[in-house]
Amino acid sequence: MDAMEAILSRRSIRKYTKEPVSESMVQEILAAAMSAPSAGNEQPWHFVIVNDRKILDEIPKVHPYAQSVKSASVAVVVCGDLKLEVYKDFWVQDCSAAAENMLIAVQAKGLGAVWLGLHPITERVKGVQKLLKLPEHVIPLAVIPIGHPDEHKPPANRFDTSRIHHNSW
Amino acid sequence: MDAMEAILSRRSIRKYTKEPVSESMVQEILAAAMSAPSAGNEQPWHFVIVNDRKILDEIPKVHPYAQSVKSASVAVVVCGDLKLEVYKDFWVQDCSAAAENMLIAVQAKGLGAVWLGLHPITERVKGVQKLLKLPEHVIPLAVIPIGHPDEHKPPANRFDTSRIHHNSW
Repeated sequence: MDAMEAILSRRSIRKYTKEPVSESMVQEILAAAMSAPSAGNEQPWHFVIVNDRKILDEIPKVHPYAQSVKSASVAVVVCGDLKLEVYKDFWVQDCSAAAENMLIAVQAKGLGAVWLGLHPITERVKGVQKLLKLPEHVIPLAVIPIGHPDEHKPPANRFDTSRIHHNSW
Repeated sequence: MDAMEAILSRRSIRKYTKEPVSESMVQEILAAAMSAPSAGNEQPWHFVIVNDRKILDEIPKVHPYAQSVKSASVAVVVCGDLKLEVYKDFWVQDCSAAAENMLIAVQAKGLGAVWLGLHPITERVKGVQKLLKLPEHVIPLAVIPIGHPDEHKPPANRFDTSRIHHNSW
């Protein structure tokens, strides 16, 4: 799929068919994630692929808006590792760029996904850390369930010229 | 350009030819930015297009690693508006996703760009706020100079299987 088309047509997809997402597709999506830029190329990220049904079904218990995970056969938890940070407090931007690359890659492959935020909501962070046995210095930023879409949405047009300024406010 | 190719081949480009970037290309890049997902669809972003040479040349004075702006004919400052936030402290993730969409769109159009971080470094934030006359509640996240590439880099392969985990740490 064309890059601009993938970016402009991407929507949050929360319903997935039972068809599983192949491991090779997940790996390609993670290659996209790790191609993101990061502050001083620090690459402070880790990715936990969750495809154990029992663990997937636990996620909505620690995230109130994660019901979509129940119909997904796989989810990726994007994490920032504070010990890998070179530039303090830039890990959120780095990991967000990686997450966005994943969403564009998902769209390009005809799959669907949604960014479910964890950090900086303490109870969600702690809940996922416990569930996935993450060390304290590894902060889960977002859960991204991925699947073959079972809902279809037209592109959203969010273009808003009132958000564009020239040379000053 | 194919979406996966754009994602995987994107590099930080810091040298640009004198050929200007058309206003219509900048608008398309901003359409990509505003297609990003955001927490609860809050879209807390603003974009300041800087193409006034005098203002562009001031940017390296408030950002020590922004020499690349001197050879760019245009730069976009990606900002978060705290008054538009619905979900507290998610604006950084939202604006980072928008910034990453911009970089992918830039790559797809055969242009080059680099993400120069501002927030959370206070002196850079205050310097750019003053330069662009931003209100206090509008926080500049990054400066992204854009141009026709005057340097060419092969794709970086950052894929690292040690960053991939299955079902738990």
